Amino acid sequence: MKRIGVFTSGGDAPGMNACLRAVVRTAIYHGIEVYGIRRGYSGMIHGDFCKLESHSVSNLVQKGGTFLKSARSPEFMTKEGRQKAYEQIQSAGIEGLVAIGGNGTFTGATKFYDEFGIPTVGAPGTIDNDLFGTDYTIGYDTAVNTALDSIDKIRDTADSHDRVFFIEVMGRDSGYIAVPCAIGGGAEIAMIPEATVTVESIIDKIKIDWLHAKTSSIVIIAEGEVEGGSTKVAAKVREALPDMDARVTILGHVQRGGAPTAFDRLLASRLGIACVKGLLEGQKDVMAGTINSKLVYTPLIDTIAKKKEISPEYTRMIEILSI
Amino acid sequence: MKRIGVFTSGGDAPGMNACLRAVVRTAIYHGIEVYGIRRGYSGMIHGDFCKLESHSVSNLVQKGGTFLKSARSPEFMTKEGRQKAYEQIQSAGIEGLVAIGGNGTFTGATKFYDEFGIPTVGAPGTIDNDLFGTDYTIGYDTAVNTALDSIDKIRDTADSHDRVFFIEVMGRDSGYIAVPCAIGGGAEIAMIPEATVTVESIIDKIKIDWLHAKTSSIVIIAEGEVEGGSTKVAAKVREALPDMDARVTILGHVQRGGAPTAFDRLLASRLGIACVKGLLEGQKDVMAGTINSKLVYTPLIDTIAKKKEISPEYTRMIEILSI
Amino acid sequence: MKRIGVFTSGGDAPGMNACLRAVVRTAIYHGIEVYGIRRGYSGMIHGDFCKLESHSVSNLVQKGGTFLKSARSPEFMTKEGRQKAYEQIQSAGIEGLVAIGGNGTFTGATKFYDEFGIPTVGAPGTIDNDLFGTDYTIGYDTAVNTALDSIDKIRDTADSHDRVFFIEVMGRDSGYIAVPCAIGGGAEIAMIPEATVTVESIIDKIKIDWLHAKTSSIVIIAEGEVEGGSTKVAAKVREALPDMDARVTILGHVQRGGAPTAFDRLLASRLGIACVKGLLEGQKDVMAGTINSKLVYTPLIDTIAKKKEISPEYTRMIEILSI
Amino acid sequence: MKRIGVFTSGGDAPGMNACLRAVVRTAIYHGIEVYGIRRGYSGMIHGDFCKLESHSVSNLVQKGGTFLKSARSPEFMTKEGRQKAYEQIQSAGIEGLVAIGGNGTFTGATKFYDEFGIPTVGAPGTIDNDLFGTDYTIGYDTAVNTALDSIDKIRDTADSHDRVFFIEVMGRDSGYIAVPCAIGGGAEIAMIPEATVTVESIIDKIKIDWLHAKTSSIVIIAEGEVEGGSTKVAAKVREALPDMDARVTILGHVQRGGAPTAFDRLLASRLGIACVKGLLEGQKDVMAGTINSKLVYTPLIDTIAKKKEISPEYTRMIEILSI
Repeated sequence: MKRIGVFTSGGDAPGMNACLRAVVRTAIYHGIEVYGIRRGYSGMIHGDFCKLESHSVSNLVQKGGTFLKSARSPEFMTKEGRQKAYEQIQSAGIEGLVAIGGNGTFTGATKFYDEFGIPTVGAPGTIDNDLFGTDYTIGYDTAVNTALDSIDKIRDTADSHDRVFFIEVMGRDSGYIAVPCAIGGGAEIAMIPEATVTVESIIDKIKIDWLHAKTSSIVIIAEGEVEGGSTKVAAKVREALPDMDARVTILGHVQRGGAPTAFDRLLASRLGIACVKGLLEGQKDVMAGTINSKLVYTPLIDTIAKKKEISPEYTRMIEILSI
Repeated sequence: MKRIGVFTSGGDAPGMNACLRAVVRTAIYHGIEVYGIRRGYSGMIHGDFCKLESHSVSNLVQKGGTFLKSARSPEFMTKEGRQKAYEQIQSAGIEGLVAIGGNGTFTGATKFYDEFGIPTVGAPGTIDNDLFGTDYTIGYDTAVNTALDSIDKIRDTADSHDRVFFIEVMGRDSGYIAVPCAIGGGAEIAMIPEATVTVESIIDKIKIDWLHAKTSSIVIIAEGEVEGGSTKVAAKVREALPDMDARVTILGHVQRGGAPTAFDRLLASRLGIACVKGLLEGQKDVMAGTINSKLVYTPLIDTIAKKKEISPEYTRMIEILSI
Repeated sequence: MKRIGVFTSGGDAPGMNACLRAVVRTAIYHGIEVYGIRRGYSGMIHGDFCKLESHSVSNLVQKGGTFLKSARSPEFMTKEGRQKAYEQIQSAGIEGLVAIGGNGTFTGATKFYDEFGIPTVGAPGTIDNDLFGTDYTIGYDTAVNTALDSIDKIRDTADSHDRVFFIEVMGRDSGYIAVPCAIGGGAEIAMIPEATVTVESIIDKIKIDWLHAKTSSIVIIAEGEVEGGSTKVAAKVREALPDMDARVTILGHVQRGGAPTAFDRLLASRLGIACVKGLLEGQKDVMAGTINSKLVYTPLIDTIAKKKEISPEYTRMIEILSI
Repeated sequence: MKRIGVFTSGGDAPGMNACLRAVVRTAIYHGIEVYGIRRGYSGMIHGDFCKLESHSVSNLVQKGGTFLKSARSPEFMTKEGRQKAYEQIQSAGIEGLVAIGGNGTFTGATKFYDEFGIPTVGAPGTIDNDLFGTDYTIGYDTAVNTALDSIDKIRDTADSHDRVFFIEVMGRDSGYIAVPCAIGGGAEIAMIPEATVTVESIIDKIKIDWLHAKTSSIVIIAEGEVEGGSTKVAAKVREALPDMDARVTILGHVQRGGAPTAFDRLLASRLGIACVKGLLEGQKDVMAGTINSKLVYTPLIDTIAKKKEISPEYTRMIEILSI
């Protein structure tokens, strides 16, 4: 292998730049040329490539976002789009690909591999931590810390005003962000997609807590929980407990940005190195991840199709700790 | 004067604790006893007082929120409520009051002074910076920095995805938070209550910017701007520019909490000292503030009734800097 | 078991309060009384105990330091001291102990258990991460992030001035803090106690880097590395490369404080729960830790005597990434 | 005026990039070309110039350091060096200069103006805040907040261990950084160059405080205070109070870096605009600053020669607040 391409795709995640830096420098370390592909699959189709050197990724390890940019590409979902992308890859002499992203990225990557056989190793870059084949995804630790930092601030107000706060964090399909936020944020309840918490049970819990002299409560709600979202839940609670001063904050896109944490920089660096080494060692159509701190390659198809469960121990922890 | 009372009221603001610490220690320094009144006017009515010592305010200067708590008190708006409050103050032997808060706090305070004549000095504690009689209110600098920190994070995503972001910051009646956020956040436009920016002009500006090769835009919107709020504005822009990927984030209550900045700790400390000194020197029915870094006492009625203008220079700065 | 005692000892670490909160609430959840022992073994000897309730640990999960305080106790190293401590524990009716700390804490705890047989479960609370029996200690992740945040700031200056910076981080016996700081901080070299890096090799590396157009370099030095400390190393480099503008910063005690990260809050909460459950299930003379995310109890004597190795993979990563 | 040059010189300060951005965009807004001069006077001598466009300063407002870099230039202190610089400036067609820096920068700038008459307007970019002609310098607010953030962390440890901490902050000639750090950090004492605080008085203060049940103390020491520096002071205190656990932390270069605060971004933007406007309006050999929030131009010679006093009110505040 003489030349590889690297791109980021899907929602950006803190640590993507650290991962890109590791990919670039590992390739150069092993005497391989690296081309950056801008804006993911869209740039692949349009041949938006640039040669990357060691200094191209200087002073990037601590930066949020992705300097190669990311974009959605409906065109890549078509056979014609992928054909065009293949031709661009071919004519640029790229013999292997590193794909940094999440679900959607890997769905595209494995399809592309099936059709054109260019060896591809993925790195899990998404704040959602919902990929099978790795204990942690790049950006997850940062997103949780960012959310927690906001929750700490909101608690100052909750506590000063004897309020109930409903705080919505990211997580359309999983409670991976919500759960550590609830435990670390000293919340009373977490509502997550994996386990139904009824509004009634929330009302009961708040009632009992306040009878026991609690004067503020925090409920962490994952986007994807089943009772209809933070605004709806808060409305119902307000109706049942009209004396409570209940407020809603949706943390939103803030959770995606910012300088990556030490954990994410380390993970991103390690997986970036592993992607290039994987390609050199003949890996194809897999994702590099870490399980129990050990490097593992998992078929891309499994990372999408298999489900990573969240430990029920955590729900129990929230119950005990909010006594 | 032998004994004074101090309370916080209205929305909490970072630096209130630093101000309370200064009030308590200055009083003790001058041989005066201090009573904390919990939950503002509500606690005044119910006699929820506690004697404060120097160590009561140890390790508080850096904490967000207010350890004396804050609350709304509809009862204090009635003559009977205020009568009860007066009786509590009387029977506790409190001869002067320090009131930390904003608009609503001072409206109550000046009315209470009119009726019962207990000398009262206010400190401007609100993130909104909309009080006449002081260049800055306690908590304002922190709120702006908190908002800016979030905007920096969102920019990582805006830039990685070539997006337009509409970010709503606090400010129901003024653009004091929005304007420095726009300048410091590198935003293209600020929509504020003081100056109408039409949605049409925003659409035009974005169009031109993107023609000139900008690939992301940030619009800062104060809660109280006149075009209907961030969600509505974004919807209209999306309609006019369907190719743009436009997103909305409402920063919300995060802006109220967190450790105060150096500026707010200094201001809070200075004004806390000034409140007690003011009482000792015979001030009554005034607010302590700083204008051009000098300590100034302004009649409470003026702080509410008079309007503090935002400099038009700032709007011009945004225009120049986003070229 | 009806009543347990809990204390923190040794250097404070972020997350100790979160761990205390978990211990207290888990005990209460299981109907057990908890006594806080102030200032570690010193407070044990002097009977400085206080009953803790659920609300005693409210609003503590996010606070650095330890609200029970910590202290050195030369007296506890004597047989007489421990005898006194035992009598205090006895007369307070305490039947089990939770000890939060590091090396020194567990040395005392296992000795005390040997002599008096009071069941004791430890939680690893130290920023050093040098305890056998757990992948991570409470406070470690926060310390690394704090150091990294400082390194990011210093890099701004290094880069603006074309400088070489020697940054000393904590770690008297291990490179656990230095290594992720080097990888995550984009450093060129890490000097750690586990592996000798000669000053000569540093000089060579810097020379070569600058020949290849690098314009700033960062060297991370663990306190305990073998070439004599950051000041000495910098002096030798300055002598050999007089044209280089070489500076030293010793991060110092800043690394011990601050709000714990999400990771540390979660770990601290989990281990706090595990300590109490361990006592209830008959554990004695062990430390609760996590290995590969699973809860593990390790004899206290092993946590001190056995050595936890740092992966050589990391040193290799620094080499590749700083190409 | 058709073309101007801009450079940063001296110690870097957060906000320099925000100022550069404002200079560049204001020039372009007024139809003037801008050249960046790399590495200050050194780059001027060597003709290290680059044309700057609006997008050259995109995404820079929030970045620490200076993208044009800074350097010392002994050569510029010679007549020959300045002659060379003038020739470079001439041949590049640069008709006006914006100089961002501190004392040393302006000393060079005014000399250069005297000799060659190229209109120069300076912006005060230094964390030290020791320039006459402006209430605040760019970077000062950020440096104070960075130091304070570290002090907050150290306090966690001081408080947990009943310790005395001596924390050295920057400020070779002034207490501008030390004083707000002491007030905002809840310190007991500040030692600054402007006012001698003897070690004896510190020992007395600590003794009395601890008699009155204080259990930790923080002393903030400016680099330039007169009793010999933090290490020496701590040694003497340790000798006099051997029971105290006294520690030293020197914050060092961390104070120079990091993302600028809102205040610094606003100030930097405003002064960057003012520099270009000043040149357009015929200003020469002056510094743009703000006094009482109003824009003021002060002769460069005065900014260096005249002394800006620190208000004695602050020392008094520390005394009252640490009671």
